[in-house]
Amino acid sequence: MGGKIEARLIDLGIDLPETRSPAANYVPARRLGTQLYISGQVPQQDGTDKFTGKLGSTYSVEEGQAAARLCGINILAQLKQALGGDLDRVVGVVRLGGFVNAEPDFTDHPKVINGASDLMVEVFGEAGRHARAAIGCYSLPRNVPVEVDAIFEVS
Amino acid sequence: MGGKIEARLIDLGIDLPETRSPAANYVPARRLGTQLYISGQVPQQDGTDKFTGKLGSTYSVEEGQAAARLCGINILAQLKQALGGDLDRVVGVVRLGGFVNAEPDFTDHPKVINGASDLMVEVFGEAGRHARAAIGCYSLPRNVPVEVDAIFEVS
Amino acid sequence: MGGKIEARLIDLGIDLPETRSPAANYVPARRLGTQLYISGQVPQQDGTDKFTGKLGSTYSVEEGQAAARLCGINILAQLKQALGGDLDRVVGVVRLGGFVNAEPDFTDHPKVINGASDLMVEVFGEAGRHARAAIGCYSLPRNVPVEVDAIFEVS
Ligand SMILES: [Ca+2]
Repeated sequence: MGGKIEARLIDLGIDLPETRSPAANYVPARRLGTQLYISGQVPQQDGTDKFTGKLGSTYSVEEGQAAARLCGINILAQLKQALGGDLDRVVGVVRLGGFVNAEPDFTDHPKVINGASDLMVEVFGEAGRHARAAIGCYSLPRNVPVEVDAIFEVS
Repeated sequence: MGGKIEARLIDLGIDLPETRSPAANYVPARRLGTQLYISGQVPQQDGTDKFTGKLGSTYSVEEGQAAARLCGINILAQLKQALGGDLDRVVGVVRLGGFVNAEPDFTDHPKVINGASDLMVEVFGEAGRHARAAIGCYSLPRNVPVEVDAIFEVS
Repeated sequence: MGGKIEARLIDLGIDLPETRSPAANYVPARRLGTQLYISGQVPQQDGTDKFTGKLGSTYSVEEGQAAARLCGINILAQLKQALGGDLDRVVGVVRLGGFVNAEPDFTDHPKVINGASDLMVEVFGEAGRHARAAIGCYSLPRNVPVEVDAIFEVS
């Protein structure tokens, strides 16, 4: 596809991965009217967890941001798949939910999730600004440090 | 009611419980356009918590799945109530939020929440496939092991 | 503004604070059709955290309710800002997400989040009743005891 957002991804040096569908009864994306819900994505690359451990012990805030950015890249890959390959159908990012696997005394959840929020604005500009909640979890699937889900407005 | 989904529930041997409304200023279901939001449901039966404890200590993954399925049954009961008894007005399941009360080293949250996801596909078929996020909490109301909330598309 | 909801706030003795926008790539509010998503709000007042610590150790349930009510007041302030100052454009409260920073044996999350739920019904009456999920987190941003996000229906 030769769309505007694809060109932007190339400028940013972002190569969206092949998507994988969960081997289960949920799906990566579900549309309702102009809303597109993306399932929680983890910092996986080529089918491998690139990060496993917790913020406040295993990982620094900067490493957490990199993990959150990778969650965001996987969100974009699922979004592209759901839109038949055409990311120019994105009207805007509505909401991100950010879940940080953190030790009980960790306090920098917003900085970690900025790794995903910043990506959305790099890719979509002003339309990438979104509502957000960032919270701490003391466990996450496969002990990944971050999980992010999303709602997009699409045409 | 003699609808198609009711017939399916009978085939599956699922008897939806009487619903209870929270004794508080929130409600079990809230509609917005074609969206119906169902409040977080816990594995309660006949007003009693059927499970109390955490995954990774009190409960096995299989027990967690049974608890998640019971959350799903309570979601369907609230959904039916909100639709005036007619589950055939369900267009599809949009999203489930799965919250697992788990020890810090627990990693199988997706398998646990499959107990609710599988139920939705048993009952609604392909229309039951949904977006999802599954996360860990180190505490939940009344120490239940699982809480699940939901968004449905309805007519 | 001289609206009905503004008059109700005066009756209740609630003075909405000046809003602050996050110094980041997310925003306090994002609209999609008739839905307005409000980002997770914490119990901050005049730029200062009024509560830091956890339920089940630092804070009693009653203190947690006061913190949740303050989250709710900050939600209303962001909502008013997003609606150009006119809270009479609120059709109703659709959903609250309640996140309680709690010790692992804490069980009264619903009572804590009632601090926000009760506020919505005080302000909006029957239209303030909403779907809700209340869960436990063992860490939250800046160690606040409660975070609440919201979805409103607006005209
Ligand atoms: Ca947690």
